[in-house]
Amino acid sequence: ALRDFISDQHPGRVAELIEDLDDHDGDAFFGVLEARDRAEVLSYLDIDKQNRLVEAMPPQAAAELLRLMSHDERAALVNRLDEDFVDEVLPNLAQAERDDIRRLTSYEPSTAGAVMTTDYVTLPPHITVREALEKLRHEAPDRETIYYTYVVDHNRRLIGFVSLKRLILARRSAVIEEIMQRDVIFGRVDEDQESVARQIDKYDLLALPIIDADDRLVGIVTHDDAMDILRQEQTEDILKFGGVSPDPEADTAPYWQSSVLSVVRRRIKWLLLLFLAENFTFPVLEYFQWVTEPKRYPDLALFVPLLIGTGGNAGSQTVSTVIRGLALGEIKLHKSGRVLLRELLTGVCLGLILGTIGIAYAHLWRGQPWGVSSVLGLSLFGICVWANTIGAIVPLTARRFKIDPAVISAPFITTLVDATGLVLYFTIAIVLLGLTR
Amino acid sequence: ALRDFISDQHPGRVAELIEDLDDHDGDAFFGVLEARDRAEVLSYLDIDKQNRLVEAMPPQAAAELLRLMSHDERAALVNRLDEDFVDEVLPNLAQAERDDIRRLTSYEPSTAGAVMTTDYVTLPPHITVREALEKLRHEAPDRETIYYTYVVDHNRRLIGFVSLKRLILARRSAVIEEIMQRDVIFGRVDEDQESVARQIDKYDLLALPIIDADDRLVGIVTHDDAMDILRQEQTEDILKFGGVSPDPEADTAPYWQSSVLSVVRRRIKWLLLLFLAENFTFPVLEYFQWVTEPKRYPDLALFVPLLIGTGGNAGSQTVSTVIRGLALGEIKLHKSGRVLLRELLTGVCLGLILGTIGIAYAHLWRGQPWGVSSVLGLSLFGICVWANTIGAIVPLTARRFKIDPAVISAPFITTLVDATGLVLYFTIAIVLLGLTR
Ligand SMILES: [Mg+2]
Ligand SMILES: [Mg+2]
Ligand SMILES: [Mg+2]
Ligand SMILES: [Mg+2]
Ligand SMILES: [Mg+2]
Ligand SMILES: [Mg+2]
Ligand SMILES: [Mg+2]
Ligand SMILES: [Mg+2]
Ligand SMILES: [Mg+2]
Ligand SMILES: [Mg+2]
Ligand SMILES: [Mg+2]
Ligand SMILES: [Mg+2]
Ligand SMILES: [Mg+2]
Repeated sequence: ALRDFISDQHPGRVAELIEDLDDHDGDAFFGVLEARDRAEVLSYLDIDKQNRLVEAMPPQAAAELLRLMSHDERAALVNRLDEDFVDEVLPNLAQAERDDIRRLTSYEPSTAGAVMTTDYVTLPPHITVREALEKLRHEAPDRETIYYTYVVDHNRRLIGFVSLKRLILARRSAVIEEIMQRDVIFGRVDEDQESVARQIDKYDLLALPIIDADDRLVGIVTHDDAMDILRQEQTEDILKFGGVSPDPEADTAPYWQSSVLSVVRRRIKWLLLLFLAENFTFPVLEYFQWVTEPKRYPDLALFVPLLIGTGGNAGSQTVSTVIRGLALGEIKLHKSGRVLLRELLTGVCLGLILGTIGIAYAHLWRGQPWGVSSVLGLSLFGICVWANTIGAIVPLTARRFKIDPAVISAPFITTLVDATGLVLYFTIAIVLLGLTR
Repeated sequence: ALRDFISDQHPGRVAELIEDLDDHDGDAFFGVLEARDRAEVLSYLDIDKQNRLVEAMPPQAAAELLRLMSHDERAALVNRLDEDFVDEVLPNLAQAERDDIRRLTSYEPSTAGAVMTTDYVTLPPHITVREALEKLRHEAPDRETIYYTYVVDHNRRLIGFVSLKRLILARRSAVIEEIMQRDVIFGRVDEDQESVARQIDKYDLLALPIIDADDRLVGIVTHDDAMDILRQEQTEDILKFGGVSPDPEADTAPYWQSSVLSVVRRRIKWLLLLFLAENFTFPVLEYFQWVTEPKRYPDLALFVPLLIGTGGNAGSQTVSTVIRGLALGEIKLHKSGRVLLRELLTGVCLGLILGTIGIAYAHLWRGQPWGVSSVLGLSLFGICVWANTIGAIVPLTARRFKIDPAVISAPFITTLVDATGLVLYFTIAIVLLGLTR
């Protein structure tokens, strides 16, 4: 009955059921699952629960679990488990499995190698479709996917690709070599995980084969893991854009997982750096203090937050647009000039509108003389153009110097605009109002 | 030879080849492709090129193309084509195809219905695995996917799911009803596209079946389209977070596609709204102008940008964290209290550090007396706590009132903190320095 219930369910649903139970009942339920179901359900559980459940198992049972898990999931699990425990478990596995685990856990984090799996199907080029289907059926239980198969030569070099759909539609007597797709889209084992995931997105693939420096097939990255990667990278990007460093420990860092202390650590870095940058507004204001003396134009000081705030807002708009364009590959570096021109033009349009409104606002609403009103209007125009310019230049420059443009946050641009915008403002005031010290 | 070349290539690669040619050669190349290849290559081309190529075809050829395209892609294409042209083309299609197009183009944008496809395989519950495989093989050429099949009763109600892997592993004589998974994960036709895509992400699915109000199967959303949806939604979120309204016309709005004018329109709205909000800093500063008079504490004014800038930065950090947590469903509304507490605590920690540094900075670096230095330090503490609080409260409140929390941008929080932070600052100054008017 349990067997029937489980086979009627998605393993992710079973995992949810377990998480709804209290720890004691959940562990018991997990314990009575068949070994193969356990291996499937495990990876849908909370990371912490996974580690706890496995480390509570006798080494032999844990080894059996590892044997049945998909190869990428088990490598990730082994990376998280206590080292001593792993040392007890691994000897219970066959040599081939141990080697596989060792290989998959050895790649640099965030590379294709670290996220790929090795439980895929390969075909030799000379067998028939009938033989291939037989092989597929035989290997299916232990493979993450059988819908894509890869053709390799005797040196394991990737020479072709056949989808199961193509196999099913082909004559049973056809030879694989005749029906395979020869121009295979692939990734490199040391390639960044995001670029691999973007290929899967771009070509709508179920999996992307990964090859090593000798062009040998060493793994595949599957569509579901590509989705995970893109979700994580996007989380990283939006947090960076808000001025938060990503969690270095957890690759996936759900909101609740990191401690307040780690959150504080990842935020204070940026706050301090920005504080340092922002501190230059002090000498700037000090230098121009004479302009706002009671006998001169004290009210100019009252517009300062409005002016630099607006500049910061315009800068944030530009930088979010440019960062996203860069992340999606829509903006290429060789088109930097056109990006800059486009943002400059946008800045001019926005500046003209805001500048005009600014003059009217200062004169009509705030009762300022035309002179002061014009200073505000012109400064609003200038700061919009300026904010749009640096909002484009800074992330483009970061990319050119191979710095992740996503670290150019809204706070970063805002801070830059604050200090420089003040210089612009007071310079315009001095010139326009004909002030001398 | 062309036939061989194409069958060795992914259609996305062929599309790239065409885009590398100039328009004339590209069109010619597209023209000599076989009809079925043309249908596959088309959707990988630029949207503009797609429309142009199809509208240049004679109605009969365009109809043949539509017949061979996957059903979601052709519905999207028909939505984009000139209406008069469509009226000429549709009569050349069979009634069933016309109905399908009419149905798929009739759903609200951004719902499951608008992104689903109808070229999937259904199985009746009583046939054998052998018969099912035969049916699959027969229908495969016209189906978007054959790897997932759905079992429906005589009313087309969804009663089960069978993957091709399960079919291949089952006894040939087994009946579908015996081997199907009964607890099927599904979406509703009027459900938001993002929630459907997140289900596919969560359960690692190749496709999610979509049912109507009567529980009848009406379509499937596939993994590749789920990835497209998540990418678009994320683009929307990061642009909104930067204070840019998403492009209302284009669902996919690559950087280069929208005109400068439309960009200006989508940005100026927010800039003006924020300008209006930010304008309250003027009366606040005016009201407290006496505090910074030459005889009192003029230097307090010099710290204004530094103080409110830091507050805005802290607020941006919190709001990006909370918005992402909400988007991924990690933060649930019923846990709002815990989120608030967590962010408050983070704000207190950040405030203690920045406040202490602020006092030292003002006294040692800027040579301010202890009094003024303490005002700055205390205000930095207060503004951090305050910014973290509203950075959490505002998006949570938005969500509670069913407003997309992603519209709570970094500029929005920054602007809120600017005006309120000034009140805090001068109040602390008056109290701490014992000032009276
Ligand atoms: Mg295995
Ligand atoms: Mg990365
Ligand atoms: Mg795609
Ligand atoms: Mg995997
Ligand atoms: Mg997974
Ligand atoms: Mg990144
Ligand atoms: Mg069709
Ligand atoms: Mg949406
Ligand atoms: Mg997933
Ligand atoms: Mg599709
Ligand atoms: Mg697609
Ligand atoms: Mg959204
Ligand atoms: Mg600011």
